Amino acid sequence: MASAPYDLWYWAEIPGRGEFIRLALEAASIPYRDRAREAGSDALMRDMQSRTGRRPFAPPYLVAGDLCVAQTANILLYLGDRHGLCPSDEGSRRFAHQLVLTMMDALDGAHDVHHPVSGSLYYEDQKAEARRAAEPFRHDRIPKFLDYFEGVLADGAGPWLLGEERCHADLALFQLVEGLAYAFPKRMATLAPEHPLTFALRDRVRALPELAAYFASDRRIAFNEDGIFRHYPELDAS
Amino acid sequence: MASAPYDLWYWAEIPGRGEFIRLALEAASIPYRDRAREAGSDALMRDMQSRTGRRPFAPPYLVAGDLCVAQTANILLYLGDRHGLCPSDEGSRRFAHQLVLTMMDALDGAHDVHHPVSGSLYYEDQKAEARRAAEPFRHDRIPKFLDYFEGVLADGAGPWLLGEERCHADLALFQLVEGLAYAFPKRMATLAPEHPLTFALRDRVRALPELAAYFASDRRIAFNEDGIFRHYPELDAS
Repeated sequence: MASAPYDLWYWAEIPGRGEFIRLALEAASIPYRDRAREAGSDALMRDMQSRTGRRPFAPPYLVAGDLCVAQTANILLYLGDRHGLCPSDEGSRRFAHQLVLTMMDALDGAHDVHHPVSGSLYYEDQKAEARRAAEPFRHDRIPKFLDYFEGVLADGAGPWLLGEERCHADLALFQLVEGLAYAFPKRMATLAPEHPLTFALRDRVRALPELAAYFASDRRIAFNEDGIFRHYPELDAS
Repeated sequence: MASAPYDLWYWAEIPGRGEFIRLALEAASIPYRDRAREAGSDALMRDMQSRTGRRPFAPPYLVAGDLCVAQTANILLYLGDRHGLCPSDEGSRRFAHQLVLTMMDALDGAHDVHHPVSGSLYYEDQKAEARRAAEPFRHDRIPKFLDYFEGVLADGAGPWLLGEERCHADLALFQLVEGLAYAFPKRMATLAPEHPLTFALRDRVRALPELAAYFASDRRIAFNEDGIFRHYPELDAS
């Protein structure tokens, strides 16, 4: 078997941060092996522990020959540069990366709502704190992030974040909005009419012919309550 | 007055994320204006609100002519590329950025310890939750981050994170360790002997001749309890 150019390593059971990488790879038809989905998350842990030198701190990481690139936004920047997933002028490249980093901040926030005390405790051990954390996240943070992306889209030449050309940040925004809508369906239903451009972008990515086969395959992992975006009805409200 | 090449915008009262940018600029003698320190944080808020198009989500941001670069790690990557603050081979550039992104994750964790429920509430309104969050942060997260950087240093050619050549990530690690030692002095005193390379790097940056004038000046803002790293004795323990 010819070896694929990229090995992606990420937890096998959740979409999480790995999904942002998969979407970029799949939409551009870049061959990759999803190693922990082939061999299990134990294999991921063994691979992590075996790495020395310029090693990852945490999954996801992408291995390309001797190069091991970690941190979700850093991987997307790398793939964007190498495969032309983003307009190549300096302003566009750096702004796309800034947008992705902002989405990663939103992602962290969505995680911390159900794990406000610690990622090393179960949700069940921090439910009271999570309920308290959810209200300001729903009412202050989600609108602040959506207002930001809506403003960028409104000021741009459209229909994508950087204008006429789709880039990896658009795929990431799709995944972020999908995740928030999974975790907070009532709140996102309230916010959708105020953010028409953002939700239209989400719908446009959903309908991309380049992603149709992927979305229909079992390579696409459904959101679930072991992941970053979790639907706990007690944390949602309109 | 000739205009400086860069305008840095960040809250005037705290070191926070802005300090990571200042250290890179100061160590390389790159001229900049620290706009909110000249004109106040109200001026920062007005500037933020006036920006359209490819705008920042939050401070810090760096303005260079028509280019506005936001997200701390993204700004450091930009400065590193433009001013040779990092070895220029692809592996080194991308690994330095990965390291900085990991430091930013540690920084977020240090913030969330004193604001586990919400950044929009006062510490006094979430003290019980903060006390609960502090224990796993001190005992799981801080060692995990320090072990990681110590391992990178131990495997490298030393004495810096990328080997013989100092880069912007070393300055960032200095600031992270200083901040953690300010916030959690007892815990960091316990962890120091187990992480000699990391603490030696901190000491080496502290003693850099290039930074001596800066450290002695009022441009260097002391850690304080409005910032990201806060010393609340009730959250610290050995």
